[in-house]
Amino acid sequence: MQRGARLDRRIDFYFDFSSPYSYVANEWVGALAARHGRRVRRHAILLGVTFQAAELKSPVSYPIKREYSVRDFARSARFEGLPYAMPASFPIPTQNAARVFWWLADTRGDEAAAAWATAGLRAVFTRGEPIGERDMLRALAAGHGLDPDEAERVWNDPAWKERLKRANEQAIAAGVFGAPFFVVDGEPFWGNDRKPQIERWLASGPF
Amino acid sequence: MQRGARLDRRIDFYFDFSSPYSYVANEWVGALAARHGRRVRRHAILLGVTFQAAELKSPVSYPIKREYSVRDFARSARFEGLPYAMPASFPIPTQNAARVFWWLADTRGDEAAAAWATAGLRAVFTRGEPIGERDMLRALAAGHGLDPDEAERVWNDPAWKERLKRANEQAIAAGVFGAPFFVVDGEPFWGNDRKPQIERWLASGPF
Repeated sequence: MQRGARLDRRIDFYFDFSSPYSYVANEWVGALAARHGRRVRRHAILLGVTFQAAELKSPVSYPIKREYSVRDFARSARFEGLPYAMPASFPIPTQNAARVFWWLADTRGDEAAAAWATAGLRAVFTRGEPIGERDMLRALAAGHGLDPDEAERVWNDPAWKERLKRANEQAIAAGVFGAPFFVVDGEPFWGNDRKPQIERWLASGPF
Repeated sequence: MQRGARLDRRIDFYFDFSSPYSYVANEWVGALAARHGRRVRRHAILLGVTFQAAELKSPVSYPIKREYSVRDFARSARFEGLPYAMPASFPIPTQNAARVFWWLADTRGDEAAAAWATAGLRAVFTRGEPIGERDMLRALAAGHGLDPDEAERVWNDPAWKERLKRANEQAIAAGVFGAPFFVVDGEPFWGNDRKPQIERWLASGPF
């Protein structure tokens, strides 16, 4: 009974398509969850909105910390055995990719949205593709088996713009102020580097 | 030859007596270094000074992030199996404890300074002692086997004030913008949570 209840529980994973640490975490979170009988619910958000709510800025907007962060992004990817690239211009606008994410989540389910999340994060951080640009995002959609005209209609649709806005508000209400951000059994974990703590939590419960 | 050269190399570990993550890292860095034939050179610094250079602020000075950080400080200590407490007022002024640190480092060596670092960090984060206060710091010194009058003369001495100032400047020049901060073979690592990356670096070299 307890076991069954636990298997049913999910991991909430908040990310931004322009977040390097979200790219890294997105690659391990599925397997980690599966090892512990959990499922993952991804939430595409706009970091700029959560930064504003918490009066924060991107780590690359600070002197000194910027150089370290750029180095650490790549090193943290290599630490997980992942390829890494950065778009020439960074951060990139991600609202359109996020609106397509929520359209997929709401109309085709979490798995379809997860596949899009992975495709988008890999496009940005393994090939350096600026998916904030219209043509680049249309090409990504087409390569992913979506109709690029339909994808573009979605990201221009006030209903899906509103859906993303709600997702951002829900994230802020959940205490999210950065990405990746995880909520497991009500416990918040911020950062790709909280993987060991999340793993212990999943394996043996609260500590 | 290569092995001998490597055994001679050190890990630079920058910390502030008021940094919870420095307290946690200080507890594991010695054993980790020893496992890989390294020695640790600790550097007491003032985070406020490095924050200013990088235009940063303490994580507890931001709304939303503050609550998470306070929770994560304690959880990160428990993750390492360590006791944890926080002083009623936080952060605390640490320049006097840091001046005593440099006096010990320069007159008695790294090991004496390391013992003082550990005593001070444990006082703050296992007993919540406000070691920024004169009487509390005198008592810490006395309990540590130092003459409290001599310790107080040290922290009021312009020469040791200048020594700490130089340490802060050297840290900023080394790229330090937070604590704990490690430099291993020229590679910078920021944060208690970079332990797994440091461990891999020490075990198998650059990645």
